[in-house]
Amino acid sequence: MRALGYHLLIEFYGCGHDILNDVGKIKNLMDEAAIVSGASIVESVFHRFNPHGVSGVVVIAESHLAIHSWPEYGYAAVDLFTCGEDVNPWKAYDFLKKGLEPQSTSTKEIIRGEIPGDEDRVGYGPTLAKTEHALREHL
Amino acid sequence: MRALGYHLLIEFYGCGHDILNDVGKIKNLMDEAAIVSGASIVESVFHRFNPHGVSGVVVIAESHLAIHSWPEYGYAAVDLFTCGEDVNPWKAYDFLKKGLEPQSTSTKEIIRGEIPGDEDRVGYGPTLAKTEHALREHL
Repeated sequence: MRALGYHLLIEFYGCGHDILNDVGKIKNLMDEAAIVSGASIVESVFHRFNPHGVSGVVVIAESHLAIHSWPEYGYAAVDLFTCGEDVNPWKAYDFLKKGLEPQSTSTKEIIRGEIPGDEDRVGYGPTLAKTEHALREHL
Repeated sequence: MRALGYHLLIEFYGCGHDILNDVGKIKNLMDEAAIVSGASIVESVFHRFNPHGVSGVVVIAESHLAIHSWPEYGYAAVDLFTCGEDVNPWKAYDFLKKGLEPQSTSTKEIIRGEIPGDEDRVGYGPTLAKTEHALREHL
């Protein structure tokens, strides 16, 4: 089997209220996260809600990065969905973790789009086995 | 515990090539899916890639809906991430399934943002127990 995409679902808990409410800073962090992961930005759209909270998506040529923040709970939900072998979403993860400074995190990795093929490849990373290894190294 | 968000990760396999390459039709389907689910659209951005494939995100006041299509494989990855009790992402799911006519599907539901609280509530739906019941009814 070959997988077309690789999706990280990240929960950042215990972030600062002010940064989670700052749409400009969050947009900059997300755009930069796309760049450090090796992705090509197609368009990025960000909004600040009243009374609080920011939502934003960076559409990349290799799928998307998204964030939704709940400053009142110190919580942000982040999605890093990438495809192709030239983008490493863990680099975006590390960059965002450094920028948002969560006190705790929880991350799920989901393989998207399994297509019959003779190579055990995922969208990101060389092979499924190597990706699991890379994940273990990361954790 | 209370959960802030409810996220469906959907794989649609065996869709028609032409519809998965038609950025106008896909945008209309996704916008309409947001509306039928009860969500409020903030902004929707869609792009068609060369030689094929469509990516798009509908930012809603209640998080986002996203799609990435691989017409060459008849495959689309759909994310329906909602929060609040007034949006039912399964209505968007049913609408998109009818519109994209996949031959097979695979869906994961992920609870996002678990916050201490005295009610077992998820972003969508009344209570965790009722949501599980609703899910079983749906399946």
